[in-house]
Amino acid sequence: MTGKLYGIGVGPGDPELLTLKAVRLLQACDVIAVPGKRKEATISYQIALQAVSQIAEKECLELEMPMTKEKEKLEKSHNIAFEKIKEKLEQKKNIAFLTLGDPCIYSTYIYVHQKVVKAGYPAEIVSGIPSFCAVSARLNEGLVEKSQMLHIIPSTYGIEEGMKFPGTKVLMKPAKQLEGIREYLQKKQNCQVSMIENCGMAKEHVYQGIEEIPEQTGYYSLMIIKEK
Amino acid sequence: MTGKLYGIGVGPGDPELLTLKAVRLLQACDVIAVPGKRKEATISYQIALQAVSQIAEKECLELEMPMTKEKEKLEKSHNIAFEKIKEKLEQKKNIAFLTLGDPCIYSTYIYVHQKVVKAGYPAEIVSGIPSFCAVSARLNEGLVEKSQMLHIIPSTYGIEEGMKFPGTKVLMKPAKQLEGIREYLQKKQNCQVSMIENCGMAKEHVYQGIEEIPEQTGYYSLMIIKEK
Repeated sequence: MTGKLYGIGVGPGDPELLTLKAVRLLQACDVIAVPGKRKEATISYQIALQAVSQIAEKECLELEMPMTKEKEKLEKSHNIAFEKIKEKLEQKKNIAFLTLGDPCIYSTYIYVHQKVVKAGYPAEIVSGIPSFCAVSARLNEGLVEKSQMLHIIPSTYGIEEGMKFPGTKVLMKPAKQLEGIREYLQKKQNCQVSMIENCGMAKEHVYQGIEEIPEQTGYYSLMIIKEK
Repeated sequence: MTGKLYGIGVGPGDPELLTLKAVRLLQACDVIAVPGKRKEATISYQIALQAVSQIAEKECLELEMPMTKEKEKLEKSHNIAFEKIKEKLEQKKNIAFLTLGDPCIYSTYIYVHQKVVKAGYPAEIVSGIPSFCAVSARLNEGLVEKSQMLHIIPSTYGIEEGMKFPGTKVLMKPAKQLEGIREYLQKKQNCQVSMIENCGMAKEHVYQGIEEIPEQTGYYSLMIIKEK
């Protein structure tokens, strides 16, 4: 028997949005793993720490996960993370890997998860609140009703195609594409735009309507575009 | 000062997927509201009760919310629910309205929320784990990575258009359209299909691949279609 890896979604920012399951596993695990060079500078760690203070006393694997599209760099960082995790699993230690939002939606965790599963070690995904749910709650309105479709679009990779879909569009991390998005939306009628920066965290900012969208925004931003 | 309405997402089935915030508000509220004629027969109540047993002792508003597309019937049931909630808010009582999954995604709660906000009463949405996150976790794999888009499609209203979108498709409640979906998928290459019935509840069933998809399935089913 080896240890087990848990990929734990800590939600988007508010520590009260951790689930009971996440809290129980954080309390029970032997090792915390964070996607960052230093746990203190890792957002998912900061969120979890506010909910379960005893993780500060636990052994911590600090796994550098660079935000890059360079395949080789990515692959290398995932392999290093896997090796470090494997070592702890072989020592029969249970590991809680912290991840922002939900582990199934654009998380860095999932690549490590796949390697661990493939290598035959036990691994489990623990759902967290996705950012777009928390943003919609913060705006005090629904995302989709009845026959409306919901499209989640990772806007760092281009948004042209996605903007044409019917229903509600969520643009994840629009910071780098903000100018193009603003231009596109200014031409478009019949849509209602909101953006939130740092939802549930310090320096949270809500923008309502295309007029309010600034020229620059932070990395942890999210835009919701609804049909009127 | 009146009372406040909280729309509380209890997640898709596993009571451990309630958030700390949901638990705190369920413990603190004066009145529980459930979308059903009898709380014992209401799934969101059954889930919440397993996490917070003291809700059994609280005053309960049982609000009949028929699952129908008939506009008049729907409007009437929402108005009745609103009137009952308004009465309790005027009595300065805080209400926790239980809803399956997340309140922002295809919930019946949101219609009542809109009426309560419009009438000037305080109301807050408390995020819950959406069914598609829990299903993906149960399958032990991610939903989307990198530049992939995620499309949430309410399949009770026709799925033709949605099936053509690039990326991962989630078909919500496909039971009534199952024959058409099966036919469509049998013709299609390059897709990986999974379906879960009653995720995290009793009688959970996982189907992997189009061959395993049965001719009939229950109301609480969800299908994930990925590109290979």
